[in-house]
Amino acid sequence: MSDVPLGIGIDFGGTSVKTGVLYRGNVIEEAPRIDTQKFEDAAPLIEEIAKLVKELRTRHPKIEAVGVGMPGFVDFPTGMVHNLTNVKGWKRIFLKKELSERINLPVTVENDANCMAYAEWKRGSGRGLNHLVALTLGTGVGGGFVVDGRMVRGANFVAGELGQTSIDYQGPDGTYGNRGALEDYIGNQQITDMAKAAYEAAGNPQSDEDCSPAHLAKVAEDGDKVALEIWDRIAKKLSTALMNCCWLLNPEAIIIGGGVAKAGSLLFGPLDDYLRNQLSPAFKQNLRILPARFGNEAGIVGAATLALEEAGFDVDDH
Amino acid sequence: MSDVPLGIGIDFGGTSVKTGVLYRGNVIEEAPRIDTQKFEDAAPLIEEIAKLVKELRTRHPKIEAVGVGMPGFVDFPTGMVHNLTNVKGWKRIFLKKELSERINLPVTVENDANCMAYAEWKRGSGRGLNHLVALTLGTGVGGGFVVDGRMVRGANFVAGELGQTSIDYQGPDGTYGNRGALEDYIGNQQITDMAKAAYEAAGNPQSDEDCSPAHLAKVAEDGDKVALEIWDRIAKKLSTALMNCCWLLNPEAIIIGGGVAKAGSLLFGPLDDYLRNQLSPAFKQNLRILPARFGNEAGIVGAATLALEEAGFDVDDH
Repeated sequence: MSDVPLGIGIDFGGTSVKTGVLYRGNVIEEAPRIDTQKFEDAAPLIEEIAKLVKELRTRHPKIEAVGVGMPGFVDFPTGMVHNLTNVKGWKRIFLKKELSERINLPVTVENDANCMAYAEWKRGSGRGLNHLVALTLGTGVGGGFVVDGRMVRGANFVAGELGQTSIDYQGPDGTYGNRGALEDYIGNQQITDMAKAAYEAAGNPQSDEDCSPAHLAKVAEDGDKVALEIWDRIAKKLSTALMNCCWLLNPEAIIIGGGVAKAGSLLFGPLDDYLRNQLSPAFKQNLRILPARFGNEAGIVGAATLALEEAGFDVDDH
Repeated sequence: MSDVPLGIGIDFGGTSVKTGVLYRGNVIEEAPRIDTQKFEDAAPLIEEIAKLVKELRTRHPKIEAVGVGMPGFVDFPTGMVHNLTNVKGWKRIFLKKELSERINLPVTVENDANCMAYAEWKRGSGRGLNHLVALTLGTGVGGGFVVDGRMVRGANFVAGELGQTSIDYQGPDGTYGNRGALEDYIGNQQITDMAKAAYEAAGNPQSDEDCSPAHLAKVAEDGDKVALEIWDRIAKKLSTALMNCCWLLNPEAIIIGGGVAKAGSLLFGPLDDYLRNQLSPAFKQNLRILPARFGNEAGIVGAATLALEEAGFDVDDH
């Protein structure tokens, strides 16, 4: 492996913590997952992560940096995690300091959607671009932006929250009182609810399972009218938030990942139409709408890549 | 005046072209206005502007650069104006080249809302800040953003179009097919229409003039219930678009100028409430909502300041 530095990427989720070793953009080893909910407090979970990192280092001595993607707001310079709503004890945790002291390696902590965006920018569909909107569609809607070749973090490092933007000023209150928040329309559960209501209205009630995004994609492929209509409605709502990003930031590309994006052309087809029909000729023909390259590995790849860059390594070469 | 460089700022509007000489951030001479509609084509109007510049130079030999703010999309590097809907003959006009060849000075051409944002950032309410959303409320709604200490222009130099962003995915079609565009709710004329309808519904019909934003501010100050309700509705709609900017860009400050902003606390009061009630505690307490420093001079100040910077002068000192 000569002198190419390796990185560790940690994808910290509400259910499990996934850890992988990155070499030249590839995850060459994934460690056993840690069950997030097993821990009553932050300290023992950090201890467990440190143990895992130390073990990986015995096999990969060239590991130079560790990146962690967190499902919540992070104060980027200090690596302080503000608050995790679904994980016990995670409130104002200085994760960067706590972890780096234990493992004696540089640690970078970043919001998970920004890590996903970073992976796509540096190693994925957005490679070489300077103006990028990346988003991930799953339980919620996460986003990360690149403007003029730099990650947008904002004054308090909480920029990029596409899922919290409004598509309806008269919509229902969101998590932060934000009316008509995008993720309250097209998060996984909200899609299921929307589909259940539509099937019921059509006199053909369906189970929660049959209304999951994955199943809706399957039956829509087979021509199910209600499911096709649901994908159209998802595309219309998503197009509004993305059109706003285009008018505000004028990106070269929009990169879409996450479970819901697996619907492929069922989503990308109508989305492309809705979006381009709401933009100016001055820029709409240049806009690219691309599927993400990375799936479940996006968090690991992005966190490790970012950590290596923050530690002073140039990842463009490897 | 020693060695301090002077700049000329040109605020190109659909009605008139305003030209001023900038010295240390102050407009020290304003030239006679040119009537935009008098010209059948771009070339003679450019010729007229060049004549004006030459004349100003006879009195101010230290003029080093000329900046022009345009009411439309501009290709920033080439200074090409895409299209002006209200001015005859302005389609794909290479203004930077045409003007600089005539006056033998460096010329910078930029969108007018970006010039206003630039004025506030470098010389006004946003001085010293690195993350900024600036907007101007008038006939339409214009915007300009600073992210990480740099003006956001985007891939095709058309970023910052706050007025075109949607606040309702089911709203009426805007200029570009964009449904629910902010400026279709709170542009000058739209405010007047909204007020007329409200007065009529209250059994107290009013003239167009009495429903202008300026008059609505006057009577709201005197306790007019309908006018107060209109300002509340404007604030609610505007707060949605600004909240989207906050979630996406996490600015330190939002700076609001233009005629409609003259309503002062009638607008800023409810806007502040609506906005903060839709943001996360992680950043809402740090957000400042500020009135613009510059009024009608914003375009001249911004264009001249930008032109001086583009010509290599450091405007921070003067």
